[in-house]
Amino acid sequence: MSQPTYSRTRPCRLNDVPHWDFEADVIIVGFGAAGASAAIEASRAGASVLLFEVTAAPGGTSALSGGEIYMGGHGGTPIQRSAGFTDDTEDFYRYLVMASGPNADEAKCRAYADGCAEHYQWLIAQGVQYKNSFISERIVEPVTDDCLLWSGSEEAWPFSEHAKPCPRGHTPQWMGMGGGKYLMDVLAKQVLKAGVQVQYGARAMSLVAESDNTVRGLVVKIDGVDRYARARRGVILCAGGFIMNRDMVKRNAPMLLRANYPLGTVDDGSGVQLGQSVGGAAINMSEGFVTLPWYPPESLIRGIFVNQRGQRFINEDCYHGRVSHHCLQQGGNHIYILLDKNSYAEPAFGEFFKIGIAATGDTWAEVERELDLPLNALTSTVELYNQHAARGEDPLYRKATKWVQPLIEPPFVALDCRIDHALYTTFTMGGLDTAVTGEVLDESRAAIPGLYAAGRTTCGLPRWGEGYSSGLSLADATYFGRQAGKTAARTVA
Amino acid sequence: MSQPTYSRTRPCRLNDVPHWDFEADVIIVGFGAAGASAAIEASRAGASVLLFEVTAAPGGTSALSGGEIYMGGHGGTPIQRSAGFTDDTEDFYRYLVMASGPNADEAKCRAYADGCAEHYQWLIAQGVQYKNSFISERIVEPVTDDCLLWSGSEEAWPFSEHAKPCPRGHTPQWMGMGGGKYLMDVLAKQVLKAGVQVQYGARAMSLVAESDNTVRGLVVKIDGVDRYARARRGVILCAGGFIMNRDMVKRNAPMLLRANYPLGTVDDGSGVQLGQSVGGAAINMSEGFVTLPWYPPESLIRGIFVNQRGQRFINEDCYHGRVSHHCLQQGGNHIYILLDKNSYAEPAFGEFFKIGIAATGDTWAEVERELDLPLNALTSTVELYNQHAARGEDPLYRKATKWVQPLIEPPFVALDCRIDHALYTTFTMGGLDTAVTGEVLDESRAAIPGLYAAGRTTCGLPRWGEGYSSGLSLADATYFGRQAGKTAARTVA
Repeated sequence: MSQPTYSRTRPCRLNDVPHWDFEADVIIVGFGAAGASAAIEASRAGASVLLFEVTAAPGGTSALSGGEIYMGGHGGTPIQRSAGFTDDTEDFYRYLVMASGPNADEAKCRAYADGCAEHYQWLIAQGVQYKNSFISERIVEPVTDDCLLWSGSEEAWPFSEHAKPCPRGHTPQWMGMGGGKYLMDVLAKQVLKAGVQVQYGARAMSLVAESDNTVRGLVVKIDGVDRYARARRGVILCAGGFIMNRDMVKRNAPMLLRANYPLGTVDDGSGVQLGQSVGGAAINMSEGFVTLPWYPPESLIRGIFVNQRGQRFINEDCYHGRVSHHCLQQGGNHIYILLDKNSYAEPAFGEFFKIGIAATGDTWAEVERELDLPLNALTSTVELYNQHAARGEDPLYRKATKWVQPLIEPPFVALDCRIDHALYTTFTMGGLDTAVTGEVLDESRAAIPGLYAAGRTTCGLPRWGEGYSSGLSLADATYFGRQAGKTAARTVA
Repeated sequence: MSQPTYSRTRPCRLNDVPHWDFEADVIIVGFGAAGASAAIEASRAGASVLLFEVTAAPGGTSALSGGEIYMGGHGGTPIQRSAGFTDDTEDFYRYLVMASGPNADEAKCRAYADGCAEHYQWLIAQGVQYKNSFISERIVEPVTDDCLLWSGSEEAWPFSEHAKPCPRGHTPQWMGMGGGKYLMDVLAKQVLKAGVQVQYGARAMSLVAESDNTVRGLVVKIDGVDRYARARRGVILCAGGFIMNRDMVKRNAPMLLRANYPLGTVDDGSGVQLGQSVGGAAINMSEGFVTLPWYPPESLIRGIFVNQRGQRFINEDCYHGRVSHHCLQQGGNHIYILLDKNSYAEPAFGEFFKIGIAATGDTWAEVERELDLPLNALTSTVELYNQHAARGEDPLYRKATKWVQPLIEPPFVALDCRIDHALYTTFTMGGLDTAVTGEVLDESRAAIPGLYAAGRTTCGLPRWGEGYSSGLSLADATYFGRQAGKTAARTVA
């Protein structure tokens, strides 16, 4: 048997396909939230759909998540309104653009902001249930079955100055953490109901493409044998990100290697690589999410973060991912949260995330010495903070007044958020450049015929570590997964 | 006439080539330092070489530079030795790795460190002249015809802790700035002498490739007509970076858009795009060089940099590019250099680079008020610095003792380095991933047959804004340009 000349990074040419083992209008790679949403819509649009999943079950990395989806605008979802919030579409849009950072894709932000009311109804129609409730305390993920929460930096500077704050994280009605598994169960049921044919244990090996790179199918390995699947209308890549491919992370997003807890299942970069093999542009590849969820309880937000020089670097009322991103930018391994008797509380997940106590003292000078910091490096920082805080102000970093109080009541504590010790979780945000339709684009932003992508394989709404908010990933996966499914289904081959 | 189906991002398939207008063993795109070096070596290895240049003359962006080449190791070049320095190859290697940052390509650093003595001799043999002289003062580029200078962060922490410092910037013997033009004149003369055929006014439109992406040639537009050039052994892309393609910068390195003075000639990303069109991986695309050359005179290094919160953020004795990179990371637009009577001097290129005076005062409190900074934000920073400086120490940022002196002699000055006003120059550092041989690699690091690249089109030695040192770009272009030329010439088609 001759060596196949194709690989993930080199397409199988149409001429080299010996025969077709499968055939469908639309072929989808990956059964996470993006793949499921794409499959449902493609099938309902009248296409025959074949979904290949490398593992033995639906879920992907989506099933590991809290199931939270970032939604708003149009005056507010029913749950936002019940909680007393109104959310203007333009505020929602502006927040999405800010959250996307300097490489924002305004078209995607616009499409999602405008389409979100419909998308909320679509999720309900699939059977996703939301309890009509709001958690006002700043948390990371509900441990109850409650729904709405502040899941980003909406109330924090500079976001609060440019878009009216509103909580937008919608968590499904599921008791405890892990609502992502519930969400995937609901979507997977709809996938099967829609008549999608699912093949598990199928590893995508190569795209099948014409010599001009028009995509015509996929080679998948099943039970050790390469199988050839013809896609009459298109292939949709929903194969996750690349956080588990450590070489690829090193070459593209080396900063993320410092975070020691990659969040993913397969996420081996195969989706990105397959797209690149036919000229798809992978953009924004250096960006990623990094977080050490250091609150709840929210009283910790009244403390201040300092680096190993004893200097502050961020307004602590930002989303934990934004704070953690800045932790990694500080140069040096040591990061501390400084607290006094009035602000201290034991971090809720401190043991899991390895947040311990680095030093205590009856004076900040004692804490400084115990941390082995240069003389006055820490005390001068605290003194300056306290001077302003006594007036309820934080002119340096603009933490909101409600979180600002002087750290003057002993005993004083420094919590240990060492980067090489605590559990900084991470995933990638770079990926294939796509249009709002889900079409994969090349470096000149021309569409590659027959190729679509969604979810973490693409560079979607989540594209800036400093701006990420919980729920953006599943918002992106489900909404743009749907668009890719619809586009591919209506494509005339 | 039918529309061509090829473009920079989509190769022309071999079957679609109507006829060959040109034919050579090796085809090179771009007549900068990389292309010239590749052409010389390919031709001397016995290959027929055809070089296409889009402009009307040799030079490229290399000719805009100071002509400095970063060289060392092997005990030192003759000029380093004459100046009293010895430079161990391992120190040189370690510095190169550090300068490359978290995505270092150790193989490239090793190859260059090991090959540098031979490379120095090669440059001499081409006719490049170096005066046997050393400038000990920290400058950016000689205005005389002198040679050796400190062109990086060798003496600064943390570099100084891991590699014995040695000056390694070698500037050609050329009176005044602009030694790059001289260097290119010397290399261009050798290109012609080697019998290379040069075609000016030829714009690369598309690679010609087989259906498996093996590269067989190039489509170039000359006088408005597409011409087909067959490469019997290979095509070498030396077409510069992408700093002039602002859309591409936005999608890949948006931070660089803040620097308002792009350094380039063509640098339209075509080299990277051509490589991507056949599956070449573009890596490290977010990185770039940014600098506001704020010294000489070197006495300014005795000042301290602060951001718009009045906080320090870097040891000021680093290379100006490293300092400037951190300026852009600070959040906010305002950056100041604080100086006292003992450290102040007028910046040598202050007028050109738009470095003015933001505030003066007889006390730091006056300066703070004039800058409209929060109360004590600046005075507490200066006070802490002065406390340590009085003992000749900078425990926070580890500026070397020789630059540390308290800022206590009025009048006090804050120089204005506003990011949206001063002239921050910038170029890109991401590009095609290549092997030390010059072979272009795909995302799995497999070589693409028939395709080579060098210089700014690739991700070479310069790949980390925080670590760049002057002379690394031309070191990379000339050394790895040579390797690409040699490899392509000996390739059996």
